[in-house]
Amino acid sequence: MKPRLPLEPLRGFRDLLPPDSKLLAALADIFRELVELQGYRYVIPPTLERFQLFALKSGEEIRRTMYVFRDKAGREVAMRPEATASIARIYLKHLRGEPKPIRLYYIVNCFRYEEPQFARYREFWQAGVELLGLPGLEADIEVAKILLDYYEKLSMLPHIEVVVNNIAIYRKLFNKYNVPEEEQDRILHYMDKKEYEKATELLERHGDELREIVKCLWDSGSPEEALDKCNVEPYSDEVKNLLVFVKLLQAYKPAAKIKPELSFARGLAYYDGIIFEVKVPGFPVSIAGGGRYSGLIALYGGEDVPGTGFAIGLDRTAAALRHLGLEEKTIEKPPHRVAVIVIGRDPQALLHAYRLQHSLTEAGLPATVVYASKKVLKKLGKLVEEGYTHAAIIGLKEAKEGTVTLRDLRERRQTKYSSVEEAVAALSAAETKPT
Amino acid sequence: MKPRLPLEPLRGFRDLLPPDSKLLAALADIFRELVELQGYRYVIPPTLERFQLFALKSGEEIRRTMYVFRDKAGREVAMRPEATASIARIYLKHLRGEPKPIRLYYIVNCFRYEEPQFARYREFWQAGVELLGLPGLEADIEVAKILLDYYEKLSMLPHIEVVVNNIAIYRKLFNKYNVPEEEQDRILHYMDKKEYEKATELLERHGDELREIVKCLWDSGSPEEALDKCNVEPYSDEVKNLLVFVKLLQAYKPAAKIKPELSFARGLAYYDGIIFEVKVPGFPVSIAGGGRYSGLIALYGGEDVPGTGFAIGLDRTAAALRHLGLEEKTIEKPPHRVAVIVIGRDPQALLHAYRLQHSLTEAGLPATVVYASKKVLKKLGKLVEEGYTHAAIIGLKEAKEGTVTLRDLRERRQTKYSSVEEAVAALSAAETKPT
Repeated sequence: MKPRLPLEPLRGFRDLLPPDSKLLAALADIFRELVELQGYRYVIPPTLERFQLFALKSGEEIRRTMYVFRDKAGREVAMRPEATASIARIYLKHLRGEPKPIRLYYIVNCFRYEEPQFARYREFWQAGVELLGLPGLEADIEVAKILLDYYEKLSMLPHIEVVVNNIAIYRKLFNKYNVPEEEQDRILHYMDKKEYEKATELLERHGDELREIVKCLWDSGSPEEALDKCNVEPYSDEVKNLLVFVKLLQAYKPAAKIKPELSFARGLAYYDGIIFEVKVPGFPVSIAGGGRYSGLIALYGGEDVPGTGFAIGLDRTAAALRHLGLEEKTIEKPPHRVAVIVIGRDPQALLHAYRLQHSLTEAGLPATVVYASKKVLKKLGKLVEEGYTHAAIIGLKEAKEGTVTLRDLRERRQTKYSSVEEAVAALSAAETKPT
Repeated sequence: MKPRLPLEPLRGFRDLLPPDSKLLAALADIFRELVELQGYRYVIPPTLERFQLFALKSGEEIRRTMYVFRDKAGREVAMRPEATASIARIYLKHLRGEPKPIRLYYIVNCFRYEEPQFARYREFWQAGVELLGLPGLEADIEVAKILLDYYEKLSMLPHIEVVVNNIAIYRKLFNKYNVPEEEQDRILHYMDKKEYEKATELLERHGDELREIVKCLWDSGSPEEALDKCNVEPYSDEVKNLLVFVKLLQAYKPAAKIKPELSFARGLAYYDGIIFEVKVPGFPVSIAGGGRYSGLIALYGGEDVPGTGFAIGLDRTAAALRHLGLEEKTIEKPPHRVAVIVIGRDPQALLHAYRLQHSLTEAGLPATVVYASKKVLKKLGKLVEEGYTHAAIIGLKEAKEGTVTLRDLRERRQTKYSSVEEAVAALSAAETKPT
């Protein structure tokens, strides 16, 4: 007896089978169609990159949880924990000569060595866009708008809440008080983790005034309140941008809830402008998020190209759809009315059976071939349970004549067609006939 | 100045942008549609597996070139070099209770640390099927037939050559002469590498008789010749199977060249029946391959479930399509006749611009929004070069009235529509109008 292998996937990894695999594919397809029509171009970045690419600015937590190793040539490489760093590199390598703005999208799997939890896996799927070369608020609105379009297509619009903030308020404030960049990143990291006490400790090193302004911002229920109460005069433009962003998105899709939250931050350290996250109240993790990163491309050694974008957590969105009971219509639209099992009753009849199957699938009808077996013929009734609507029985006689004996499995009626074309035409009619 | 990062992807890895990324996606979509209709179910295996899973039976060369490392918990893990081993594990974990046959398909990236060459990369894409639970030749025919269907869809059928052999002839022969399994695998490995002298050296250890039969098989130009000339009496059924396989496929698609080649083997050590490889004469690497593996699932500690399947090299197929000059029609069918640029001339008009874009993309028309800029308005002529056919100009006036000013960029004609719906209807008509 050979050694038995563990049959489980590695901890935090998954084997995806239907309906899960189909739902994931459908979510990716809907995304792709949406962004292609809006002028975004498909980019496939490599799964492995130099560790350095991600280490530079992806934030403490991601750095700690990366799958890093040395390849056979001794290079320190990492399986991507996210895609934006690769997209920035790809821009610098391939696209810097092109007219701006540049619109790109990706659909990738990412890897993080985190403790597996509900809807959090060590391998997970992200679909996202990056809009490069537009510094204005319109760019942030454009990408956030795509998110709303996407969740509208999934019928999720009335169920989502888009939490938004403008990190530029904090970046400008911190710069004025000479908070070093690394310390800024840590304060924002604590804000992301809702560890406001730890953030306050760091703020206190830079004096009471800064701490008070930040606390006032955190406590503000809205940008209007912040403008009113907090001492944000030099940054008021950034607070106003947040307000315009929220109002325009809300006007675009009144069914969605757009919620400014001034104490909100995100885990990736490269954000420095408008940020947003999509949540479903009652669902434990956010399902999408993004924002502006003006400094990322300059950091990688390029010119100063502003960028903004988002990533949709496809696995999380799938789980949220299930949570809301909305997954059914996303998987298959429209479902097939006809599904044919082609039964070859003799080895000599197989070629005719395959030709029939070929004609059926070319006509867009699902068709599977099974092999001559009395067992199958005795169990014709069972085939309905397996999802088939028709059985095409192909014996030596049919093969010789080029005919097709077709059995309607639900109505238990058998019809003989004089050619493959006639049978396909009859089944196509059944497929398109309104019920 | 910040440290400059290398902008190249890692050696052997690629940044895929349009048209390459679109071609790869199109090749995957065509495959998916084809196999879904034939009753295959989509499986997404994890990218990382235990090293052991692949080490057991994937063949010397793959074992040497795997991306292997220890994860943070000390597990020895590997990035998949191929998908069949994972599918076998997934069958044992999730599907062994289901009625046979079981039809599965996958579309995955694989990783091998090989010397990069033309159309060979360290990260490459494979689309494949596995048909489990059918021991007969019909199963081998079914999967090979799908390959022919696929290359027919790519208009490649007249250009391909399907090289086939039946490894069962050799397995049965080797077993009769008590060649240990590991040595069998090595002989087949040398056959795969066309290192027939090394294979002969191994064969000689088991006596002249075996060596002579094998040499006779290698030298046979056809299964008929082998039946006629070589001493294959105990294995003649397997030679006849090869003959039936070739004849049926040739009858199914006379345009393709089906070529039996008795000295041909494949790199994966688990094959033990019919094998096949798709080549394009004049193109340096094979573009797809597969075969039967009866022992793989038993090897992983399960019952004896026969399997057969194939993997298409999507990158190699893309390169072969280019080589043949056939890639154009695969990428986009049908291409759009209309592409709209929506020009928002004022921040206050943006909402109206977005609504127009939304209505256009919902109607399936490509539409991109740009922001108020005199520069753009002066360069309307340039937009044609960028691929746009119409510009929708949305100023404050249009936003207030809900109207759309539409400019046909090629005919330089401007029309005002009284509503978004009217403009979309006009553009939809232009999209569907036959030229």
